[in-house]
Amino acid sequence: MKATGPKAELEEIPEAECLEILDQHGLGRIAVVVEGQPQIFPVNYAMSGQIIAFRTGAGSKLSHAPGSKVCFEIDEYDSSAGVGWSVMVQGVAVDATESLDDVSWAARAATPWPLAPGAKPFRVAIEPSKITGRRFRRRA
Amino acid sequence: MKATGPKAELEEIPEAECLEILDQHGLGRIAVVVEGQPQIFPVNYAMSGQIIAFRTGAGSKLSHAPGSKVCFEIDEYDSSAGVGWSVMVQGVAVDATESLDDVSWAARAATPWPLAPGAKPFRVAIEPSKITGRRFRRRA
Repeated sequence: MKATGPKAELEEIPEAECLEILDQHGLGRIAVVVEGQPQIFPVNYAMSGQIIAFRTGAGSKLSHAPGSKVCFEIDEYDSSAGVGWSVMVQGVAVDATESLDDVSWAARAATPWPLAPGAKPFRVAIEPSKITGRRFRRRA
Repeated sequence: MKATGPKAELEEIPEAECLEILDQHGLGRIAVVVEGQPQIFPVNYAMSGQIIAFRTGAGSKLSHAPGSKVCFEIDEYDSSAGVGWSVMVQGVAVDATESLDDVSWAARAATPWPLAPGAKPFRVAIEPSKITGRRFRRRA
């Protein structure tokens, strides 16, 4: 989306800044596609370089994310400042629990801490193919 | 996901309560699938019965959502109370800008108010096929 004139103050966030924002947060959402139907799940995550890592139990995320295209997103809207932003990561998920590839090793160096209860012995990594973000400021 | 013992306090939120929570909020996210790649976008929405309505400009949401399976999600984590929840709506999107079907009429009765700048002359509705939610409480 582009700015459409003086009233619009929507800007793209450069990739390097998107990565900084990802580093500064820990709660996001992953979208996975289950038989053509997208599903969105909140996850606590941690970064390892550009790799997003999170822990999970058996379930939709573990069954459908690894080897598939997924999306990861964080966003925030500060109503007092009138500033909103979102960062979106498109990529492929990997079951990094025990795999010996570079992405999995990187993912195991991260320390995501799940807030939700329940055993989460598996580790999933997302290797980004595209990182984008946008931010807007509302005028007073 | 089920509770796995006394330490777990993860509960399913009944559909009726999910709808109440959806009514009480106005900022969520839609996931659409673009050539096999899920993408997540924040949107300001409003409810009309069980129909989720939001406004949009030309772009990925308008090009890929209508007629397709989409997911809508809201979530919140209150760190002081240690309570987190999420509500997920799976369904099919409809371009409700001018269509004369019941879903589109219902969507036009809602009044979503976009915070982000830019012209958003189109209205998209999501007709839910499945509404689920879950909530957890962390023990002190």
